[in-house]
Amino acid sequence: MKKIILVLLVGIFHQFLFSQETLKEKYNLMPWPQNISENNTAFKINETLTVSISGEDSKKRVTNASVQFLRRLANRTGVFINTGFPVKDKKASIEIRFDAVSNLTISSNEAYSLEVKENNILINATTDVGALRGLETLLQLVNFNKEGYYFEGVIINDAPRFVWRGLMIDAARHFQPISVLKRNLDAMASVKLNVFHWHLTDDQGFRVESKAFPSLHKLASDGLFYTQDQVREVVAYASNLGIRVIPEFDVPGHASAILTAYPELGSKDGYEYNIERFAGVFDPTLNPSKEVTYLFLETLFREITPLFPDEYFHIGGDENEGKHWDENQEIQVFKKKHNLKTNHDLQTYFNIKLEKILKEFGKKLMGWDEILTPSTPTSAVIHSWRGKQEGLKQSTLIEAAKKGYQTVLSNGYYIDRLLSVTHHYSVDPIGDAILTKEEREKILGAEATMWSELVTPQTIDSRIWPRTAAIAERFWSAKNVTDIDNMRKRLQVVNFQLEELGITHIKNRDVILRNISNHQNIEALKALSKIYEPLKIYSRNKGGTEYKTFSPFTLFADACAADAEDAVSFNNNVLLFLKNKNDNDLDQIKKHLKSWANNYSKFKEIKPNPITKSLEPLSKNISHISKLLHTSLVNKKITEKELTILRNITKQLKEPCQDVELAILNSLNELIRFCETSFLMNTNIK
Amino acid sequence: MKKIILVLLVGIFHQFLFSQETLKEKYNLMPWPQNISENNTAFKINETLTVSISGEDSKKRVTNASVQFLRRLANRTGVFINTGFPVKDKKASIEIRFDAVSNLTISSNEAYSLEVKENNILINATTDVGALRGLETLLQLVNFNKEGYYFEGVIINDAPRFVWRGLMIDAARHFQPISVLKRNLDAMASVKLNVFHWHLTDDQGFRVESKAFPSLHKLASDGLFYTQDQVREVVAYASNLGIRVIPEFDVPGHASAILTAYPELGSKDGYEYNIERFAGVFDPTLNPSKEVTYLFLETLFREITPLFPDEYFHIGGDENEGKHWDENQEIQVFKKKHNLKTNHDLQTYFNIKLEKILKEFGKKLMGWDEILTPSTPTSAVIHSWRGKQEGLKQSTLIEAAKKGYQTVLSNGYYIDRLLSVTHHYSVDPIGDAILTKEEREKILGAEATMWSELVTPQTIDSRIWPRTAAIAERFWSAKNVTDIDNMRKRLQVVNFQLEELGITHIKNRDVILRNISNHQNIEALKALSKIYEPLKIYSRNKGGTEYKTFSPFTLFADACAADAEDAVSFNNNVLLFLKNKNDNDLDQIKKHLKSWANNYSKFKEIKPNPITKSLEPLSKNISHISKLLHTSLVNKKITEKELTILRNITKQLKEPCQDVELAILNSLNELIRFCETSFLMNTNIK
Repeated sequence: MKKIILVLLVGIFHQFLFSQETLKEKYNLMPWPQNISENNTAFKINETLTVSISGEDSKKRVTNASVQFLRRLANRTGVFINTGFPVKDKKASIEIRFDAVSNLTISSNEAYSLEVKENNILINATTDVGALRGLETLLQLVNFNKEGYYFEGVIINDAPRFVWRGLMIDAARHFQPISVLKRNLDAMASVKLNVFHWHLTDDQGFRVESKAFPSLHKLASDGLFYTQDQVREVVAYASNLGIRVIPEFDVPGHASAILTAYPELGSKDGYEYNIERFAGVFDPTLNPSKEVTYLFLETLFREITPLFPDEYFHIGGDENEGKHWDENQEIQVFKKKHNLKTNHDLQTYFNIKLEKILKEFGKKLMGWDEILTPSTPTSAVIHSWRGKQEGLKQSTLIEAAKKGYQTVLSNGYYIDRLLSVTHHYSVDPIGDAILTKEEREKILGAEATMWSELVTPQTIDSRIWPRTAAIAERFWSAKNVTDIDNMRKRLQVVNFQLEELGITHIKNRDVILRNISNHQNIEALKALSKIYEPLKIYSRNKGGTEYKTFSPFTLFADACAADAEDAVSFNNNVLLFLKNKNDNDLDQIKKHLKSWANNYSKFKEIKPNPITKSLEPLSKNISHISKLLHTSLVNKKITEKELTILRNITKQLKEPCQDVELAILNSLNELIRFCETSFLMNTNIK
Repeated sequence: MKKIILVLLVGIFHQFLFSQETLKEKYNLMPWPQNISENNTAFKINETLTVSISGEDSKKRVTNASVQFLRRLANRTGVFINTGFPVKDKKASIEIRFDAVSNLTISSNEAYSLEVKENNILINATTDVGALRGLETLLQLVNFNKEGYYFEGVIINDAPRFVWRGLMIDAARHFQPISVLKRNLDAMASVKLNVFHWHLTDDQGFRVESKAFPSLHKLASDGLFYTQDQVREVVAYASNLGIRVIPEFDVPGHASAILTAYPELGSKDGYEYNIERFAGVFDPTLNPSKEVTYLFLETLFREITPLFPDEYFHIGGDENEGKHWDENQEIQVFKKKHNLKTNHDLQTYFNIKLEKILKEFGKKLMGWDEILTPSTPTSAVIHSWRGKQEGLKQSTLIEAAKKGYQTVLSNGYYIDRLLSVTHHYSVDPIGDAILTKEEREKILGAEATMWSELVTPQTIDSRIWPRTAAIAERFWSAKNVTDIDNMRKRLQVVNFQLEELGITHIKNRDVILRNISNHQNIEALKALSKIYEPLKIYSRNKGGTEYKTFSPFTLFADACAADAEDAVSFNNNVLLFLKNKNDNDLDQIKKHLKSWANNYSKFKEIKPNPITKSLEPLSKNISHISKLLHTSLVNKKITEKELTILRNITKQLKEPCQDVELAILNSLNELIRFCETSFLMNTNIK
């Protein structure tokens, strides 16, 4: 009997899994919900649609979200909805119910259920923020046919896997105006991210108005800083979307800006501190041996902490190489006196002092994982960023959790490294680690990090999105939601919906290309930008030209992005074709090759300037290689001479140029090999 | 001898005029400067370029402008300029000199001279603001070849024709966030506009935080208002660009929002005042017979006026039809008591009270031309907006000037009417009027007005730009700068440069089309949007669908704009061809027709939704008509049957659809007539 039940259960479970896979093909939800089923209905969207709210909406989150929902729905569908605001009447077509207002902490509830029936839709949640998450899911259920728009009939029960699902934006290296932050907060909310980590100070700028120390924003920001009112505005805007804001004031390293304003706090006397214009790791460091340093930070934090209602406060603490500490005699004496053997010990001493100061203001200290040392109190929160790339065996996340620290992972989610979405999507915060319940609870979640050395307000969106939507799924959805192809399919739709929130990732590519071409026809450049990607893992900044904060970020590499659109599909076609020799894939390959083959003639029509001139050989070579390969695939022939030409071109295409790399290069090489193996004989026989 | 000198002078003058025309073909300056000559040099832009400032830059305007200049130059050219900030050294390659800091009044000096030589560039101005104007001219002198970018070698002496060159933005009908205002202020400065008229209140919203009367922003803005700090931020931003800010608080009409917050100030007891959702002229009006109304306005203005340093303060005063006044017995009694015969007299009574209140706060009252009555004191400023369209014989501008009022013209510059740039460009503020010197001085200048009933932050830029750049030329340049074709040529370049300032007019068309097509290929829709224009002169809002503030503004009409690109060139080709029968024009016509003929097959590939479905017949008809006309022009034949078909299609294309009109319809009809006259015989003979 037990066996029968087990078999039944396994059967049901199998069917459940199977149906979830089918549904993933059908619906374009992201993050994928924990549980979804269909009810074979649809709710038609027309002008009579109304929204009502049951619940004490004291923070107005649901009211505001409903108004936005109605605007987005009207704008997306073109339907002239009669009632642009929630109605009091409970017989609205969309009912939103919730029990309590969220206090936005790590224990806040974000679960919701959603049922779309033919005549009404019900969103049910414990908190107002849960209701917001449900509304975003509903907007992803909009579909259309030639008669009209409708919501798909489904029943969803959903809740996040991790309580901390963040995006960090570095507003220090390149200042990011309020409008950039707001549109990104909207986009974050649309994929259910709930933590905005605001990197506010670094060597390149101190970005918050300080009334206690006005030299900070006056001398160390080039005039590009947030007033305290603006900080409040952003925090309120985020709260309205159910997003917590964690500020970061990076100390004791990354301190060039602070020391430009207050050199007396530095570790090297007589050093000429200046706002840093380059990217990298620099020497200016606060002096941890001076009491005035702590007085300064205590006064600053006393002023700043009330602007940020969240309990967590990030003090950075990363990449302090201690060069100026080593060079300072007083600091050496101080270390001896306090029995601090290494600079790491000294920094821990510094952190412990800060932890106490912050506790005084009701804050929990959070820092990058360099702060994880044996003496660090477990009340600190470890932000794990380093991993194999930084010389560790693995990220410090599990270690920190096992040692009793709350911890958040960013290793694997450094989106400024410009790796493919599949790379980030494949990183699971916990992976195979075996953890006790307590240890598991210490792992709060994870954060994507948008460092801004090489991004400006014009390009930042294309560096964050759409990859961060897939990362958001990793943080929200069940661990077993890992199918890459399916993720890509859904991401394509979400990618476009981000545009309705004002995200500029699609439109600003064209702006940059129009600028590069001096407003000539950009079709040829656009085709190139769909197979080229910006150099990855910080290699853009290495050698050759070194970027300063005020260098041009309107170059071809800035118009390109990770996961170059045509490259992704072509590479997939090549992979499948070489595996299965499928005609359909071959047709796609030929289609791509043909269009690239023809592209150079369009490119040549552009009146050249220095940038287009340097891109010209790329375009020429790609057209040439595409033409040869296309001919070979069509005629099923190739000669040794042609192979030599092809290999020479790929060699040239491998050469660095304009800070981009050809994302189809491997596939082209594979195709050349295929042609050699399959057709060289043919040709010879002939 | 005198005759000889005269002949010589006439000759020189003729040559001067001639050379100015030649230069206009060569350089893409807008507004065109008062005086320009060439020196046959060029200044190469490379990484060593530096800027220096001589002058006490106490407001930092020139410093900030220089930093922005360097960023824009780097971004436009891709040159990695070494020094991103002005240098102290006076031997910089670009020297900026000025004598004084402008106080931004109507008597401020904006003249400048600019000399570009091979090794250095000098900008010389009386004030810092003049220097800013010169820097914008310099940015318009950037040119390129395949070797690099350079500034054209010219000598320019320049100053504005009018002291008041404005753009009004209505932030009441549709709220416009700070980021929209800032980017438009940048764009204004780039074409030397110097007045931002900020329409802040109307029936649809009260958009400024009031601490004295918080219900105004709390109950009458839907949460969409500027905090007082934000107002200061915008005013400071504008001042930094040498732009004055004139606020408008519209009273006693257009008062639905004010009365939503304070119904007791209304003219109709028991009336249920609400924020207005529709566009139009409405009845709610302040009650001028109650002392509390003046107390309210005095208190409000006492609070608000310090936010706006400019002397001029706009109280609206337009479109009060007095319906609620007529219905109010107390007001009737009040009129009798004060011997006020008409509602116009009553409003003048109201205005005179306001004028005194504003004087108390150091402000000059400005109002729309309804305030111009015999009793209005000449200290008031008349903003002339009505003209033939509104039932007058001509605008009130000249009348006001002759009566001794300072006056500003907007009649002819209502850009929300969506007329062609040539219409606005052809309106001269003074025209043929004969004025004394004193009268001429009363005419301060003019303003383009961007009313926002039908525009949102997404579309406002495409309604303001690029037409306002040509209008700015009308306000700045000499009266005789009127060549339309040449203006169009220069505008094309300025149009593109606006994009580098973040103006979204080009990129947001694609965003809307991607939305309409649900992110399918937009090429077919884009081709249509280049020959369709949104309905003009407020007909979009008449009959059929009436737009509310929260209606969708993401429709096909919102993707279209005045001066549809391909229509302008096609219409020009047709005009010239019919006149001169030139082969070149005929080729262009055929090229256009061929591309439209092929467009429908692309259109059909879009998976239809209600909007694309309703556009489908347009696309089909245009393809059909283009195909027939193309064939006829190629074969030089046409049959009666074909003519009947062609006429039927044009009839169908004339029908209103999707709030757009076909901008090539007249040209198509002309071509049909041409084919009939020229080829019908051929066909018959054959």
